Order: sequence, then C-alpha cells, then structure tokens
Amino acid sequence: MIKVAVNGYGTIGKRVADAVSSQKDMEIIGVSKTKPSAEALVAVQRGYPLYIADMSKKDSFEKAGIPVAGSIEDMLKKADIVVDGTPGGVGAANKTFYEKAGVKAIWQGGEKHEIAEFSFNAHANYRDAIGRQFVRVVSCNTTGLCRVIKAMDDAFGVMKVRAVMVRRGADPHVIKKGPIDAIVLDPPTIPSHHGPDVNTVLPHIDIVTMAMIVPATQMHMHAITIELKKEGSRDEVLAVMQKHNRIGLIKPETTIRSSAELKEYVMDIGRPRADLWENGIFEASVNMVGKELFLFQAIHQEADVVVENIDAIRAMMGEVSDPETSIRMTNEAMQFTAL
Amino acid sequence: MIKVAVNGYGTIGKRVADAVSSQKDMEIIGVSKTKPSAEALVAVQRGYPLYIADMSKKDSFEKAGIPVAGSIEDMLKKADIVVDGTPGGVGAANKTFYEKAGVKAIWQGGEKHEIAEFSFNAHANYRDAIGRQFVRVVSCNTTGLCRVIKAMDDAFGVMKVRAVMVRRGADPHVIKKGPIDAIVLDPPTIPSHHGPDVNTVLPHIDIVTMAMIVPATQMHMHAITIELKKEGSRDEVLAVMQKHNRIGLIKPETTIRSSAELKEYVMDIGRPRADLWENGIFEASVNMVGKELFLFQAIHQEADVVVENIDAIRAMMGEVSDPETSIRMTNEAMQFTAL
Amino acid sequence: MIKVAVNGYGTIGKRVADAVSSQKDMEIIGVSKTKPSAEALVAVQRGYPLYIADMSKKDSFEKAGIPVAGSIEDMLKKADIVVDGTPGGVGAANKTFYEKAGVKAIWQGGEKHEIAEFSFNAHANYRDAIGRQFVRVVSCNTTGLCRVIKAMDDAFGVMKVRAVMVRRGADPHVIKKGPIDAIVLDPPTIPSHHGPDVNTVLPHIDIVTMAMIVPATQMHMHAITIELKKEGSRDEVLAVMQKHNRIGLIKPETTIRSSAELKEYVMDIGRPRADLWENGIFEASVNMVGKELFLFQAIHQEADVVVENIDAIRAMMGEVSDPETSIRMTNEAMQFTAL
Amino acid sequence: MIKVAVNGYGTIGKRVADAVSSQKDMEIIGVSKTKPSAEALVAVQRGYPLYIADMSKKDSFEKAGIPVAGSIEDMLKKADIVVDGTPGGVGAANKTFYEKAGVKAIWQGGEKHEIAEFSFNAHANYRDAIGRQFVRVVSCNTTGLCRVIKAMDDAFGVMKVRAVMVRRGADPHVIKKGPIDAIVLDPPTIPSHHGPDVNTVLPHIDIVTMAMIVPATQMHMHAITIELKKEGSRDEVLAVMQKHNRIGLIKPETTIRSSAELKEYVMDIGRPRADLWENGIFEASVNMVGKELFLFQAIHQEADVVVENIDAIRAMMGEVSDPETSIRMTNEAMQFTAL
Repeated sequence: MIKVAVNGYGTIGKRVADAVSSQKDMEIIGVSKTKPSAEALVAVQRGYPLYIADMSKKDSFEKAGIPVAGSIEDMLKKADIVVDGTPGGVGAANKTFYEKAGVKAIWQGGEKHEIAEFSFNAHANYRDAIGRQFVRVVSCNTTGLCRVIKAMDDAFGVMKVRAVMVRRGADPHVIKKGPIDAIVLDPPTIPSHHGPDVNTVLPHIDIVTMAMIVPATQMHMHAITIELKKEGSRDEVLAVMQKHNRIGLIKPETTIRSSAELKEYVMDIGRPRADLWENGIFEASVNMVGKELFLFQAIHQEADVVVENIDAIRAMMGEVSDPETSIRMTNEAMQFTAL
Repeated sequence: MIKVAVNGYGTIGKRVADAVSSQKDMEIIGVSKTKPSAEALVAVQRGYPLYIADMSKKDSFEKAGIPVAGSIEDMLKKADIVVDGTPGGVGAANKTFYEKAGVKAIWQGGEKHEIAEFSFNAHANYRDAIGRQFVRVVSCNTTGLCRVIKAMDDAFGVMKVRAVMVRRGADPHVIKKGPIDAIVLDPPTIPSHHGPDVNTVLPHIDIVTMAMIVPATQMHMHAITIELKKEGSRDEVLAVMQKHNRIGLIKPETTIRSSAELKEYVMDIGRPRADLWENGIFEASVNMVGKELFLFQAIHQEADVVVENIDAIRAMMGEVSDPETSIRMTNEAMQFTAL
Repeated sequence: MIKVAVNGYGTIGKRVADAVSSQKDMEIIGVSKTKPSAEALVAVQRGYPLYIADMSKKDSFEKAGIPVAGSIEDMLKKADIVVDGTPGGVGAANKTFYEKAGVKAIWQGGEKHEIAEFSFNAHANYRDAIGRQFVRVVSCNTTGLCRVIKAMDDAFGVMKVRAVMVRRGADPHVIKKGPIDAIVLDPPTIPSHHGPDVNTVLPHIDIVTMAMIVPATQMHMHAITIELKKEGSRDEVLAVMQKHNRIGLIKPETTIRSSAELKEYVMDIGRPRADLWENGIFEASVNMVGKELFLFQAIHQEADVVVENIDAIRAMMGEVSDPETSIRMTNEAMQFTAL
Repeated sequence: MIKVAVNGYGTIGKRVADAVSSQKDMEIIGVSKTKPSAEALVAVQRGYPLYIADMSKKDSFEKAGIPVAGSIEDMLKKADIVVDGTPGGVGAANKTFYEKAGVKAIWQGGEKHEIAEFSFNAHANYRDAIGRQFVRVVSCNTTGLCRVIKAMDDAFGVMKVRAVMVRRGADPHVIKKGPIDAIVLDPPTIPSHHGPDVNTVLPHIDIVTMAMIVPATQMHMHAITIELKKEGSRDEVLAVMQKHNRIGLIKPETTIRSSAELKEYVMDIGRPRADLWENGIFEASVNMVGKELFLFQAIHQEADVVVENIDAIRAMMGEVSDPETSIRMTNEAMQFTAL
C-alpha cells in the first residue's frame, strides 16, 4: 500500500484524498488544514487523520471538535508521497520541507514547471515520471488541452492548435472572488501562458492560446481549432474520442449545451461531488473544415486533475510501468460511469 | 408497498423518485417525461420505467436510446398515488386526468391552494392529510417558513412574523432565466404571496413577507423576525432548533456564511445531489432583542419539499397516523447526516 | 431634412432616435411603443411624438401621462424612412406594412438577410446601398467583425478568419433572461451563424466562427485570429487601426482589461448612455505570430450599430454618395471623443 | 469660491469633483491618484490638476501622458477643504496629514465615526456641522436609511425600524470582487453595523438591521419596516415622500421593479453617469399595515453620498446656515430631473 499524505485539504486536496482512498494500492495516512473550517470537519467525518501546520492552533481546532493528529512534519514521516494541494504559489515554499523529509512530492499546476522540472499528464508522459521524486501535475486547463491534442496527434498528427479558454471566475464555494458582471481578458496580452504550459508536456506542438475569465463557477469552456496533418473525417475523429478513456463525449440526445446542464447531468448520474474527471467534448460541436478540426470542450476545474494525481503517484512509486494499466486502475476504482 | 408514480421527472420529480425508492414502504412504478433529454436518460439509468404524454413521440425517445413503457394513462393505472412534478401552473390541467384515473395526487407549491383545497406541511398538519385524495405540498419558501414558525409557536407562541425572502433567480441547470445583474422586486408590491401561503397551513399567524430575486442559483435566503408571545432566551430558542428534525443548525465553527459555502459543505458530507432537506439556520445569526427573534435561514429550493412529499404520501395512504413516526421514517431512510 | 421614424423605441431604437436628432441633415418625426413604460415616458421627455400600434391602448398611455400622436400608419405617412427597432423576428412582419406605406425601411441584424436582400456595413458597402428601398444593418457582432476584417483586408489582404465570440447574456436592463451561472454554447454546433452573416457583407472572406453566451451584460468580447496575405508588422497593423474612424484602440496605460472597466471609462469620458460606437480593440492584445494576427475586441451590443443606421439612412436617401463623408458627418455630429 | 481638493479620484471622488464643479460657490483645485489609470486620464480630460502621493512615480504618470501638478502636500496647501475619497480604512491614516496642513476634511462612511467624531446627513444634522474641521459623511446605505427615517420621524414619529439591506457585491467596474453565485450574509450575525451607524446621526431611533451581499453591481436594495407613532395613511406617507427633495418616487407607470431597470431609466433621462442621488422608493411597494409602514428602496451606492458631501462642504465652511437652502443649491446646480 502506497502511503499518501495530502498537504492542503481544499478543493483539489479533498478530492485527491477520496480518490486515493478508492484505490486498492494506496491509502491516505493524513491530510492537513491551517484553520478550523467546514472542510476540516469533513476530514474528520471521513476518518482522515488531521495534521496542522501551526501547533499553537491545536486548541482552536479541538474547541471546534476537530482532533489534531500532529504537525505536518509528523504527517510527512508517515508518508511515502505527499500531494501538495496548497493554494497556487504557496506550494513552492514547501519544497525544502519535502526535501528535508525525504518524501516524494506532487505539486499542482498553480506552481511553475521549475518546481519539479517535470510536468505530468498521464496519457502524454507517464513513463517519464517513473521513479521521480518530484512531479508537477499541470493545471486543469492544460490537462484538458494535453489530452485532446495528444489524442489527435497520435491519430492524425497535429500541425497547429489555436484555442480560446473561457474560464470560470471562481470555484462554486468561493465568495470573495469575481467578476460579477464582466468579461475579463486574463491575461490582456496574447498568447496566454496555457500554450507554453502545454509545451512543458508536449514540447513539439505549435500552439497559441487566448484566455478570458467570466462570471461563472461551474466549468471552463474551451473553443479549440486543431489543424491536422493527415486529413481525418468527422467520424474518424469521433471514433478516437469515443475510445479515449479520459474523454467523455456529450451526446446530442442529452440536449446539453452548457456548463450548467453538464454539471447537473454529472450530478444526476451519481458521480461523487458531481465531478467530471474527463474532458467533456460536445459531440454536436465537433466539425472538420478541410484539415481543421473545431470543437468545444468543458473542463471541470475541480476534477480533471484529480485522476492525473493518482496516476502520477503510481508512476513515481514505480509500481506500475504501463500508463494504460494505471489509467484503467484509476478509472475503475472511481467507477467512471459513461456520460 | 405504496405504488408511486412521478408525473414530471424534473428538478423536484427526480428527487422525489429517489426519495421514494429509498423508503421501505414505497416504490416507484413509473416516471414521465415529455421530451428526450439528459433527465430521461438518467431515469433509464436509475431503472425507472419511463412513460410519455404524447405517444407520437415514442420514436424520438427510442432513437435516443430511451425505452418507453407506455402512456401516462398506462402509468396512472399502475399507481396508488401520483406526485405531480410538472412546472408551476401546468399541474392544474392534470387534475381531471387524475380524477378520471381515480388516483390520489400530490401537487407542488407552484399550484394554487384551491387545486387540492388542502396545503400540507408535515410538522404543521400531517394528521389533517390522512386519507385525502388530493394534497398540495407548499412551496420551498413556504415550507421553510412554516417549519420555523410552527416550532417557535409551539415553544413560545408567535405574536407576529416579518420576513424578507431573497430568492435565487433560477435553478443551477437552468440557462435561460435571469436576472444576470439585477436585484428584482418580486412582487414589486408588499406583501408578497408567501405570507398568505403560510396562512393556508398556519391560518392564525400574523405574517407579512417581502420578496426579491437575485442572480444566484444555489439557495434562497430568508431574513426573519419573529415576535414571540413568551420571552425566550437565545439558548432556549437554539435548543428548540437543535431538537427539531427538519431544522439544521449551521455551526459557527464551520465558518459558513453563504449559500455557496453551505452547498459545498452539504456536498462534502455526502448528501445525494448535495441536497439540504432541512432549513439551514445560521446559528451565529440567531439573536433575541426583547421578545423579537432574528435569524437567517437558507432554503434549498430543490430539496426541502422532497421529504414533505414523502410524508404527504404516507398520510394520504393512511398507513402511518403519527406525524413524528412518518417524519422519522422518511429521514432515516434518506440517511439524514447531521450538519 | 430627412424625416426619420423609429418603429420600436427600445434599446436600439432610442439610441438611433437620439443619433438622428444630433445630425444636421435629419430629424425624428415620430417613434413608436406598444405599451406605456419608462421608455415611453423618456420619449415624451425628449420631445419625440409617440405613436402606438394598437389605438385601443390610447387610454392606458394617456392615463400614464403619455400623449399619443397617432397610429403607426399615421407616423409612416410623415416619414421618408423608418428604422425598425422591433425585437428580432418581429420586424419581418412589418415589411408589407412599409411596402404599403411606400416608405424606405431599415431593419436590424435580428432579421434575416432575405428581408431586405441587402446587408449593410458603412465601411464595406455603403455605395451599394445608395437609393435602395430596403436595407438590413447587420448585427452588433457582425458589424464588429466586418469593420476589422475589412480594414485588414484593405491593408494586407485576408487569407482566413477564425473568431470566438463570447457574448453577453442580456442587455443591462433585461431582468428575465439569463444565464446566471453558466457558459452556454450558442449555438452548440460549429460554425455559428456569424461567419455566414459576415459573408452577406464581405462574400469572399474565409471565416469560421464559434459562439458562447456568458452571464454578463455590458459588452461582447471577440477573440480573433486573422491570417494575413501580406506580412504586416504589429506596428503597421496598429497604425491601420489607429487611423480607422470606427475602431477605438484601448491604450495599455488605461490598464483596462475587461468589458466592465471599458464601460466605466466610456461613461467617464462623457459619452451619452456610456455608448461605445467603435470596435474597442485592446492594444496590448494585438500580436503577430508569423502572418497570423491575434487580437481581443469589445463590442458594445447596444451601440455599434447605431452609427451604421445613420449612414444607411444617408446612403438610402441618396444625399451623400461618398462613404467616408457620411461616416465623418455621423461621427462629428455625435462628438466621438477619442478613447 | 470654496477651494476643494479631492484626495482619491475614484468611484466617489470623481463624482464629488464633478458635483463641486457644477456648484456656483465652489471649485476643484486638484485631485489625486496613486497610479496612472483610466481615471487619471479622465481627470486630465476634465481639466482637474492631478497631484500624486509618491513623487517618485511622476515619470510613470508622465509617460502615460498624464501631467503631474505636484504632491498631495502641494494640493492641500491650495485647498480650504479636502474630500477624502480613498478606499475604506485608508482615509484614517490621512488624518494627521490633514491636521498638519490645517485643512478641513471630509471622510466617507468606510471610515469609523471616531475619525471625525461627527457623522453627517444633510436633512438630519446639517446645522451641527457648521464650522467643524472634520466631518464624516455616512455610507450610502446609512444615508439612504437616515433620509427616509428622518422624514417619517418628522411627519409621524418613529417607534422602531427593522430593515434588511440586500447589497451589491461590487461596483460595476470592479472585476476582482465577488460573489459570483452566492448570497452572502454580511455580517453573518444580527444586527449588522448599519443600525448603530444610523444612530450616529439619529441617536434616538430604535433600529435593527440585517445585511446580505448578492452578485449584482448596480444598486443596493432595502426592504424596510417602520412602525410609526402616529397612524398615517398610505396617501399621507406618499405625500411626505413626494415633497422630499432627496427622495425619488418611482412611479408604477414606469413598470420599473428592479435595480437594473431603474439604472437604465436614470441613464435615459440624462443623468451624468446614470447617477441616482436620491433614495429610489418604489411607490407600488409602499404599504401601511396598521401603524407599520413597509417599503422597498433602491440606493445607488456610487451616487447618493455625493450630494451629501457638497452640503457638508457648505456647512463646514459656514457659508450657508440653513440646510434646506444648501440642499436646494446643491440639487439645482446638478439639475436634478424628476424621476
């Protein structure tokens, strides 16, 4: 059993903890929180030992009915690997901490590539992660881009990619971040950082990305154009997507055409936390004009990287050397229901 | 086993269907849908026989991979009772239909009191519903008001109630309704219909309500002032709420102070569809100024009436005569987790 | 003086009425409304004679303090030309009405090209509109696309255009339309209708468009890629934009990077109704990658077509034959302030 | 001529500057900004000398085309009085600065009462401000409450006030603040600070307030209950409001019933920046139940305090001793159009 710690039991951390718990070859040995909160209470309810950064706050946790298992150092001693789920930028400060503890570590896409000098996507470069001490799982948007680009590149060859990312402004439970009534260019310059970030995983792809933020919470939406090297028919493209185990094709008969309806559907089919771990590609949008492939895909910012973290753990621990085997293990344990 | 049909498998209908399925003394014999859609596919996935209003559309359902069990008339023949989950105003037109089929029927609060000549809330008037053919379960907002008013009235006597309801503009998956950036007086006159609607359940209460609609999807929020007859301390009031099995006290240690954070918490503790069936009363807001009780409560528009429908079924079928027994049966079957 | 009637004094109609009034060679002889409302009161306040469709409603107008000048037929008798500002789809029904009255007519982009068999954009095809009886001014989004595409085509030649339109969900004062918290594919198929609509004005352009709707009210935002025939440097492209009298370059020193900040700025510089009649191109976003030009532009849905209507009037009445002369007259009369 | 400086040319400051400029007995001698921005460019365009806090930034202003007139100390030397429009909490730090310069100063409601030891509302306590060195104009919400409470108290006597404030989340041009899809209790406890803040102006009023924040930008909305001492009919109450020169009654014939439609109307009638300086009381909502008065009012957070600042200047400078005279001068100079 791989012993996993989650440093930062928040939006991503709590999902990774549950995903780890559902795997047969891993277990959660502890999670951490900096302040008493609803999420800290949930950790207790789920039976995850709770560790805290600042032991002087132990009293305030215990007054709130939250038993403290120890310090983060205590937690790291028990772990083979730690998943860093702290907010973007904060994770970098933890590196020396993990080095001192001699523990393997995974960061999220809010950190820079340089933190681990290796950026991960299961379908693209699983094998290169085998045995590594440090790995960064790329962000939700980059993960979503890598999956579909890699799939098209394998099947048809990719000439170039032009993508516009319309991003949710904040996660559903976040009450201080906006915007309320604005479309924000983020960044106001072109290209956005997403293209270069894809290149940390798929270095040879010619990609230019443009990004905005809008007043929505449920998912990001990508408008993507991929120029293929080899002409493929719409049906051939759809067949590749249909077979892919981290792409979910949203069928026209669902009449779903928005992030909100898609979230409702994922909730209704019983996924925990209504999580969409796959790219949600709208089948009706998929179209070929000459060698150009056009499509819309929804990316659930809270969910798609969760399964990538699981595969990264398995690769780094060197237990499974075949990517498809790991991906299948991950998916099956989480009971991926078909869309 | 009580045989229940759900006519209108939408936001409320799909939740009632799952709630019925979880009860030991009831079962779903069929649900209905007017058009193929994501929800129709979910009904199939959950194993509910699907009936349709217009048999000429059978082909379009079957092309979408949705087997049709028959017409709504066929469904009603198999049912002891039908829960009408059609959109507000549409349900009234179904009355002659149900009369002809000789089936008991429950409507939702979008219909007028006159449709059933009896408006239901489990804690307030369960016994009066026993054996009735037709019952209307009051709306989510009225249900939320009735629960807290009735509890305070039983414990302290209620002199008068003044309440402002800040309502969500649309359910989370609804993409055509607004507003986007407005606070809408709905109605622009005072009082709103909610006060008179409470009086259909609790006729003796002096209540004036004011209502707005805002650009949010997750829950309604009520700002309530109740003048008590008998002075009660804040602790006594909290004790009554704590004991109540359809009031959830949101503890200050959760640091939750919004509809969005509350929804996340309800999701995290594992409730199906992140449903809050109880009134979510914010403990930190509860305050006494003289004999006036002030409080904020969150009302989950998609969920609080679902459990009331279950109790209404039980009362109308005459199987259980004691309200508390039915309420406890309902809650236990749905595995109410403490907030 | 050209005598102009505005049939439908709403979002576009009221702006066209004010724009007409500011021109030296035109005057408003009447505007119409179907119901008493705030806008009807504003028409009275501005001194526009108010005509109504249904004379049986005359009393209800006059009770609301709104004098009625007559029926729409009465209004058309006094007009040389009518600008149809009725809601999308409604305008088509008015055609026989205008034919019978023998009046020239302009429709908005909510109507189909076929209604007038000529779609107008001042910079692209002013001369072809001279003397016509019927003209359709293309929609706000199509107008915004035509302006920048035509300018680039004239200067460098355009190989192809790929554009993603992120559209506001409703105008600021509209309270019933959404979405509230969703990104909606509209349409869910690719291409959207905007590309073919550009081709009604610029038939030879290779263009594919993708469109979404988001919960914002203030402006549309376009992410555009234009492949040029002749290589142009970023500075050359900016120079073309700088000189264009219906393109406003938003300077980086304003630090504006959203629809909301841009609207505030346009308000602050004193524009009536904070109207942005030009394309708002974000200078910081303009970038060349090889022969591909990338840019973001904001399109104020309520405003950019207003000035096009004025030029269409002038062309159709045959008073001014040179496009640039008309455009300059229009702009000067409205006191275009530099951004 | 009273020489006025505006320290902080932002949302409130820019409006105060324009309001000062429109008065016959005052002039703007300078405004300040900390960074080059759209608003700094607007100050230049409007001809206001621009001063800056940190003279080391002079170059960055001038590179952006914004001439710098000097430091804030230079500005204060030229002023009789300074209006502090810096963000809430920042203004307090400026106090010693103003004391040293020996200049009179006005702070906004984001600062505490203690900063000036006098909180101002023109209709309530103008005379008490005469000759003072320091005054705090209460916040937009408190201003709106004071106006209507004072008017009712003068006419009928006020027994008690219970009010729920549904507040906009951010000003229209603010892109970082939320919430996006949440109703936030702010504060989560009852009462909110607004009641005590009203008591800084009207100490004898029994008032309890409850406050929320919603995803809207255009105006706050108040749901108010006032128990009167002396019974008044609805018509008598409306007559008092009708006569009041800072209350605007929104007539039912406008069909306006939201913040958004009201903002559009105020824009359409030609108010600069679509500013509503009065309380916008919805006539249709005004209702008496026994001695209880119920009403909804819209409060434009950017505007209602602007005119109060003008009166505060006049009182502090001791030029006009009669409140009604000052209020009339202010209103007339700004060309209050009737709603």
